[in-house]
Amino acid sequence: MKTHYTRPLDLRSGRVDMNHGAGGRATAQLVAELFARAFDNPWLGQGDDGAVLPAPAPGERLVMATDGHVVSPLFFPGGDIGSLAVHGTVNDLAVMGARPLYLSASFILEEGYPLADLKRIVDSMAAASRAAGVPVVTGDTKVVEQGKGDGVFIATTGIGALPAERSPGGARARPGDVVLVSGSMGDHGMAILAVRESLAFDSEIRSDSAALHGLVEALYAALPAEAIRVLRDPTRGGLATTLNEIARQSGAGMRIEEAAVPVHPQVEAACELLGLDPLYLANEGKLIAVVAPESADAALAALRAHPLGSAAARIGTVVEDAHHFVQLATPLGGQRMLDWLSGEPLPRIC
Amino acid sequence: MKTHYTRPLDLRSGRVDMNHGAGGRATAQLVAELFARAFDNPWLGQGDDGAVLPAPAPGERLVMATDGHVVSPLFFPGGDIGSLAVHGTVNDLAVMGARPLYLSASFILEEGYPLADLKRIVDSMAAASRAAGVPVVTGDTKVVEQGKGDGVFIATTGIGALPAERSPGGARARPGDVVLVSGSMGDHGMAILAVRESLAFDSEIRSDSAALHGLVEALYAALPAEAIRVLRDPTRGGLATTLNEIARQSGAGMRIEEAAVPVHPQVEAACELLGLDPLYLANEGKLIAVVAPESADAALAALRAHPLGSAAARIGTVVEDAHHFVQLATPLGGQRMLDWLSGEPLPRIC
Repeated sequence: MKTHYTRPLDLRSGRVDMNHGAGGRATAQLVAELFARAFDNPWLGQGDDGAVLPAPAPGERLVMATDGHVVSPLFFPGGDIGSLAVHGTVNDLAVMGARPLYLSASFILEEGYPLADLKRIVDSMAAASRAAGVPVVTGDTKVVEQGKGDGVFIATTGIGALPAERSPGGARARPGDVVLVSGSMGDHGMAILAVRESLAFDSEIRSDSAALHGLVEALYAALPAEAIRVLRDPTRGGLATTLNEIARQSGAGMRIEEAAVPVHPQVEAACELLGLDPLYLANEGKLIAVVAPESADAALAALRAHPLGSAAARIGTVVEDAHHFVQLATPLGGQRMLDWLSGEPLPRIC
Repeated sequence: MKTHYTRPLDLRSGRVDMNHGAGGRATAQLVAELFARAFDNPWLGQGDDGAVLPAPAPGERLVMATDGHVVSPLFFPGGDIGSLAVHGTVNDLAVMGARPLYLSASFILEEGYPLADLKRIVDSMAAASRAAGVPVVTGDTKVVEQGKGDGVFIATTGIGALPAERSPGGARARPGDVVLVSGSMGDHGMAILAVRESLAFDSEIRSDSAALHGLVEALYAALPAEAIRVLRDPTRGGLATTLNEIARQSGAGMRIEEAAVPVHPQVEAACELLGLDPLYLANEGKLIAVVAPESADAALAALRAHPLGSAAARIGTVVEDAHHFVQLATPLGGQRMLDWLSGEPLPRIC
């Protein structure tokens, strides 16, 4: 493809301007010199209004998931909006039981945003996409005036293939099932908060942002598909909100052992300082699995054998409860209700 | 599903608040009482992190397209951001030759935006989706602080099924092919500008926003698939930019008869007033088709027989040109180059 631009995009000191979203030559240049170069793959290279893709194997169903990313700040310990956008959507597909196949990315940029920072985000997004093995096959870029956006928003959509025998879902939890988590709770939420509030700790709290599809495949490799009742990634609203969603969908209750829920001491301490509960903080690389009781040991072993699940734990069970409450058994023998997140939200955590 | 909310969402005088994007009970309520009700379909009703969908028929490929919508103002004659978001993505799929199957919608809302206006947008989006027969199967909602967004942004992604025999693409135009348009140029762009600039005309200029997949199917029903070389919807940058893209992709040039390009007199007059060229203004319901010369008459007849193509016209031909220029033959016998859009862009037209 011959380029017609008199000079290359200034990725060192240039800034996003309204032309980059107007659909003309400047848009074409931004796409060619930044996006297409970073995400380089044959589908994106087709250069049409969308991407033509091989369909899933016969017998497989499609899964589609979408996420808008508005995290603030855009860069944080352990990641940035680019890698987070890939992980968030890959994980939505993974917890449906699907093998993630393709991603799309829609960028809404604010006029004046430094192109160098945009390049860092796009490069990070491309690296996360390559590491996950899930290409960004099509995209779109829009620009809004200064003061009508906030640097960079990224909406990602993913397509996955769901094997016939898999059907995890919130409604499938049943009394007696075991609730597992793949690791410590609250790392992502606290990493974002720590940056926002300029909290200084002995060692940095890092986001757990990671792609979970490998961990999910490890679980399916170790268990009968039927034994995997529910998979979820506890993002906004944290573990507490996700467990309440599952309880509502299944019409059952849950009993969770507070002492069994892994939380980094650093996160625990920061939560005490800020008056927050780590069970309501967002995670971006943790899996909740509700599994059949007879498969719980195998599931825990499979999670622990995977690098992203080395701190996996069994945290409770599904119980009969007409009110579908999530009850938390405290270390001192007490009991409290783990309600939905309400009151003070943590905005723009993802 | 039992609801836990003490009072229903106030869709008359309520406003978007940060809680609606925090992932807790307020988000669940917004989804249940606004989005799920408006878009009502079995896939969205699954209520999981994504939608499980039937795959395309055997032999069909997938097509994926995405678009961010940031149009300003959000409501305009002939549509709003909601219907536009559906049409924009349906059209991206249609011009790939695909039958659109599913849409996802990612909403980025600004704190304080009136829920009543959001409901109008969502209802309009749902109506457009139903009219097109393409359901919104999954979605996401985020909220940003006042002054960090602009009311409502919507990123839509579509999945379509591409029959084996279809392969339209910008690279397939070849010298001798005929260039058709399905109707008048510039209506959408001028409708938006007229609202922005508070221009008053004898009769209102309306956006042409419409879903083009029916028109595309009519073309495939009338022509051998092979004869349909390129399909495009000339959105941002208008006809001129789209023709230049096709010229670049195919390595050919184009000769367009200016007098043959349909433009509403109202749009023409407004363009003269504002010093704009209708060939650079966005369209949201118009098709460009490049077809084999022997099929041009049949193609034109098929377009004209469809309600969205009654003003279809043959506007020029693809020619050999090593520089792949788009030349415009003017009514007075002159010739001018129809270059890419550059200079003053029209921001936030879609």
